[in-house]
Amino acid sequence: MESKLKIEACFSPFLYPVYRDHESIVVIIDILRATSAICTAFHYGAEKIIPVAKVEEALEWKNKGFLAGAERDAIKVEGFDFGNSPYDYMGDHVKGKTIALTTTNGTQAIDAAKHAYKVVVGAFTNISALCDWLVKEERPILLLCSGWKNRFNLEDSLFAGAVTEELCKRSSNFKLGDGCLALRYLYQLAETDPSKFLVHASHKERLAKLNLKKDIRYCLTPDQTTVIPILQDGALVPMVV
Amino acid sequence: MESKLKIEACFSPFLYPVYRDHESIVVIIDILRATSAICTAFHYGAEKIIPVAKVEEALEWKNKGFLAGAERDAIKVEGFDFGNSPYDYMGDHVKGKTIALTTTNGTQAIDAAKHAYKVVVGAFTNISALCDWLVKEERPILLLCSGWKNRFNLEDSLFAGAVTEELCKRSSNFKLGDGCLALRYLYQLAETDPSKFLVHASHKERLAKLNLKKDIRYCLTPDQTTVIPILQDGALVPMVV
Repeated sequence: MESKLKIEACFSPFLYPVYRDHESIVVIIDILRATSAICTAFHYGAEKIIPVAKVEEALEWKNKGFLAGAERDAIKVEGFDFGNSPYDYMGDHVKGKTIALTTTNGTQAIDAAKHAYKVVVGAFTNISALCDWLVKEERPILLLCSGWKNRFNLEDSLFAGAVTEELCKRSSNFKLGDGCLALRYLYQLAETDPSKFLVHASHKERLAKLNLKKDIRYCLTPDQTTVIPILQDGALVPMVV
Repeated sequence: MESKLKIEACFSPFLYPVYRDHESIVVIIDILRATSAICTAFHYGAEKIIPVAKVEEALEWKNKGFLAGAERDAIKVEGFDFGNSPYDYMGDHVKGKTIALTTTNGTQAIDAAKHAYKVVVGAFTNISALCDWLVKEERPILLLCSGWKNRFNLEDSLFAGAVTEELCKRSSNFKLGDGCLALRYLYQLAETDPSKFLVHASHKERLAKLNLKKDIRYCLTPDQTTVIPILQDGALVPMVV
């Protein structure tokens, strides 16, 4: 008798059709930096984030008078209010606002999974609140790593491993798919110093070149907020638990 | 100046279009059991293996008088000469023969990558010969894990980690993509006892239920042959080094 709840990891939005089902809660992961920034925006009181796949769509929202963020290849697109640095979203200027957002990877993953049973946003910054909630839901879970341009990346995978580890600490009711088994081992290796573990990660190198070390530190620091963003009618809102 | 050769890992044939290029040698990996069995067949003197995607195609070859192997869901398809157990291919009955072969995962990966610069077959059974050859080629390398029905699986990933580790031992001329970085860590964890490491792997459980523990042991035992199967004109042949 197999009654345990499956936790699966999917390493690329491109691979999502292979893992898609109608039962699982999908956790969107884009540690450097989209999902970290989204959590930050809600922590500072943003009301709604509209994830859009294309820069043009974000621009349409901006032209209608909304705040809008756009990032491509780790850089803020010219003419927008924000990029995808969490620091862009800290402060009163986001309070009560609706923000349109497009990023290289994270918003693509949200778009891929938009018809799932529930779609929530995960980051180290909200990991404990997220895992507490996931355990209570008693549902199978799919950890959807945004990756980098549809490729596997190390920081999203590491976070998926961290979530797997935290869920298994909280409940013995989970059964791990092979991806989660692998990532849990990885996370256990990295736990003492995730930053050191990521030293050769391709996107970390990319951001370090852009002088974004402060962002990296922030994005790898757990539990800076208890907000859990959830997708409702095409927009992310802070979940009322 | 970036002159090092990239090693990338791709965790699913479905994801291959994201990693495809015209430069890399593609190593096809399906440890339990297709690529292990293919190496075994050549070790015992098979002349040619024709990988086909569908059971019907394998049947056509059989009806033309060729030997043919077919496996689906870990079980030999009725009416065929072989499944994908390496033990099926041990002995004089394969010597000098051409064999058509279709399997759930491995032959799908070969099909996906068939237009690559070079396509070779890897398994623990030929790992040292394979890595010696790869280093000499001085080319970027893509480790293509067959997975299980397009999902990530642990044993193929572990082998990709083993190849990464062996290549890095032999040469400092490689630069690892994020997937290889992760898998190398995994392999270093598992190195002392891969079988124990795989104890919860989904496909290992699947095979153990089918009483195929002997196959698993064989497939995880390194260096039982020096043959390197390579794809030429749509068929695998033993490489002449």
